[in-house]
Amino acid sequence: MSPEEFRDHGRRVVDWIALYWERVESLPVSSRVRPGQIRSGLPADPPESGCGGSLDALMADLDEHILPGITHWQHPGFLAYFPANATGPSVLGDLLSSGLGVQGMLWATSPACTELEQLMLDWLVDLLGLPAAFRNDGPGGGVIQDSSSGANFVALQAALHRVTDGTSITEGVSGSHLVYASSQTHSSVEKAARMAGLGSRAVRLVDVDPRTLAMVPAHLSELLAADRAAGLFPTMVAATIGSTSTTAIDPVAEIGAICAGAGVWLHIDAAFAGVAAVSPNLRWINDGVADYADSYCTDAHKWLLTNFDATAFWVRDRRHLLGALSILPEYLRNRASDSGEVVDYRDWQVELGRRFRALKLWMVIRWYGAEGLRAHIEGHVALAQELAGWVRSDERFEIVAPHPLSLVCLRPVWPGRDEEADQLTMSVIESLNSSGEVYLTHTKVAGRTVLRVAIGAPATTAHHVERVWELIRAEVEARS
Amino acid sequence: MSPEEFRDHGRRVVDWIALYWERVESLPVSSRVRPGQIRSGLPADPPESGCGGSLDALMADLDEHILPGITHWQHPGFLAYFPANATGPSVLGDLLSSGLGVQGMLWATSPACTELEQLMLDWLVDLLGLPAAFRNDGPGGGVIQDSSSGANFVALQAALHRVTDGTSITEGVSGSHLVYASSQTHSSVEKAARMAGLGSRAVRLVDVDPRTLAMVPAHLSELLAADRAAGLFPTMVAATIGSTSTTAIDPVAEIGAICAGAGVWLHIDAAFAGVAAVSPNLRWINDGVADYADSYCTDAHKWLLTNFDATAFWVRDRRHLLGALSILPEYLRNRASDSGEVVDYRDWQVELGRRFRALKLWMVIRWYGAEGLRAHIEGHVALAQELAGWVRSDERFEIVAPHPLSLVCLRPVWPGRDEEADQLTMSVIESLNSSGEVYLTHTKVAGRTVLRVAIGAPATTAHHVERVWELIRAEVEARS
Repeated sequence: MSPEEFRDHGRRVVDWIALYWERVESLPVSSRVRPGQIRSGLPADPPESGCGGSLDALMADLDEHILPGITHWQHPGFLAYFPANATGPSVLGDLLSSGLGVQGMLWATSPACTELEQLMLDWLVDLLGLPAAFRNDGPGGGVIQDSSSGANFVALQAALHRVTDGTSITEGVSGSHLVYASSQTHSSVEKAARMAGLGSRAVRLVDVDPRTLAMVPAHLSELLAADRAAGLFPTMVAATIGSTSTTAIDPVAEIGAICAGAGVWLHIDAAFAGVAAVSPNLRWINDGVADYADSYCTDAHKWLLTNFDATAFWVRDRRHLLGALSILPEYLRNRASDSGEVVDYRDWQVELGRRFRALKLWMVIRWYGAEGLRAHIEGHVALAQELAGWVRSDERFEIVAPHPLSLVCLRPVWPGRDEEADQLTMSVIESLNSSGEVYLTHTKVAGRTVLRVAIGAPATTAHHVERVWELIRAEVEARS
Repeated sequence: MSPEEFRDHGRRVVDWIALYWERVESLPVSSRVRPGQIRSGLPADPPESGCGGSLDALMADLDEHILPGITHWQHPGFLAYFPANATGPSVLGDLLSSGLGVQGMLWATSPACTELEQLMLDWLVDLLGLPAAFRNDGPGGGVIQDSSSGANFVALQAALHRVTDGTSITEGVSGSHLVYASSQTHSSVEKAARMAGLGSRAVRLVDVDPRTLAMVPAHLSELLAADRAAGLFPTMVAATIGSTSTTAIDPVAEIGAICAGAGVWLHIDAAFAGVAAVSPNLRWINDGVADYADSYCTDAHKWLLTNFDATAFWVRDRRHLLGALSILPEYLRNRASDSGEVVDYRDWQVELGRRFRALKLWMVIRWYGAEGLRAHIEGHVALAQELAGWVRSDERFEIVAPHPLSLVCLRPVWPGRDEEADQLTMSVIESLNSSGEVYLTHTKVAGRTVLRVAIGAPATTAHHVERVWELIRAEVEARS
């Protein structure tokens, strides 16, 4: 495709996306296709010939055969899981990255790719009120990871490097290296322990407070003491700011003091919630991070207006991360790296290759400014609090967990129908989703099935939140 | 940014990229900035206000402050490392993915994202002549990974799951699980062994043939027998098709027969070279794969006209991969997954989240067709063979390794200056690179520094290859 052809076809694709965003509300939020349906609409074999310079057939297939299989994450009625914000400036930043097509594995392979990333991570330290120790100009530093799953995994690699004085990279690990998390911790922490060779038996489950679902520091202390007494090696505590199930917030300051006393790495998974600290009113969620966190991650690609993937990950001291992940074959040696004056981000991640992801963060922060980012977050939090107020004042419902941010977990009360309550709740969700107007998912709290209303798509307004509440009430009434 | 604004700004960015591709040859291939220079040109602090709906300031900063820090991977004189093809159809496929902004972690979260990926990986099985056992409609299957580093890591996870009968995920690993590779194997295999908790001491180095740099099967047999006799557990052999240093090709059929006899997982890292099999003339590189490979990866994002990231990864039997990587928290449960009728790709990778990367593969394969892909690969191979011919007929140079594909490794002969030979060769590379016309990197072969001429950027033509040969000869003459 020549540059001239790209001009024409590029405009067509840009127009397609603009129109898609304009009409997305008219489409059913979640796809209604059957397993195998999308595939069966497309040719089983690859084409021998190209498409002769025309995008017509491709774009027709996109509309006819692919779009029906899309669940629309940018739909204003998308209230499932957590949001995955895709905004104009972010899409354009990503487009520039694709067009430049550079590989930022080393500083030398495109210095701007590394230096803009360092600057953006430092900007985020400012914007989120994170500790100066995380900045790239000291012993710590920040980097973009593909996801918080990846960040949790590399944090564990760094923690293992520290607890073994670096021998983990040569001698490997043993089953006596332990990770501490709660039942509300994201499954990626257990997955990280497995992938790091510790096995899931190395994950100690710390109790949570049944009301807040936050980790109980006293129980963490007990577990650590018992494990130490047994000759085992506590390696990392994974504390959560904003759990996936209910946005529960672990008491980081208390947990951190315990970790500091025990010499255990404290990693903070703030995947969804951390970006909320862009609002000074919500900055309390990070209490304790400045004093105690060894590493911290939050996803710009969920609620901070930036396309997947863009997880911001920081460490207080980069030596252990680099110790765990650096490896230098001859064909990557270069004068800049040898000088020690530059950072090579390949040493901060699982992969070697990396795309110029800082461009989309740069576009987003420049376009919206700090005030725009705050308004986005605070708007959703206000909507969620309004919804929670309505739920609380309706005796047919109960709120099942604290809701400090933009997720509200609620449950219909089914008087006299305790045994079938979970099925009834699930059938409410399924009916709501089949309407095509909204899409919600469930979780379990204290063993009971509950609805999650996760506000965060940029298109979602007060009108849509009122509407989902109306729909929920109607579904419950129909079953009462 | 409203959809209407996106239309305007999107066109501007598309035009910027088209113009960039038109003028890239006029820019110096590799950036000449000093460490810190890019960052120091940009504001140290994030902006309080947004940019008021205009992209003018942003685009000006891009030209003035970011572009000077770019090393131009799409420049026709880019002959360093391996190429990172970025083409129009691929950039547009990626743009559609950004605009749709869907998360394909589960089939249910956008069925098209999973089903188009399954179809594209099956198309690639056809296009590359890979075994039908890799197809998604049998017990095996294919998936897009972020990079071959990631693919090598998950292959090891699957191998560990198999060799331990699944206990690795609960009990962890021990230092007696071993990985076999050669000195020419990519560093990501050793990194994978470290990250999996085995440590680098678990990596056994198999000898290579000094002429071909390919693994010596007889030595692999010896090592396996000795380790078994010592009560250790050989777990995975990583064979390479197209090594990073010189595109050496390990004898997969012989290695595979040994692995099959010993019950060891055979993983094939064909990161750069595997896509060359799109040409029937080059399909011999995969000899032995059909009979023996348990897993295989190749990067569409290096030489197959597709933007990073897009590693194609296949397994012959997906049970062990899924056994190693599946984990199911309540909030991800859904009717489709429970039915067993669908594939959830989150269980095939390190991360949970995933972007709709199949769209760019679909655009690329549709746009070029099989014939266009073949022409792209065969054209570069022909250019490399022509270059090799010139080198061979010039007594001032020697070719240091086989060059079956598009990489030629060569060395000036420095008569009477053996001791300073490596510095002289390095100074040739540095002079060439400082010209701004070309960019090459080095490697070491048999302890000697050599030039790598890696042809593969779509813009590179016969003219550019003639020119680099002219420049190399001039630099050597100036030192003779």
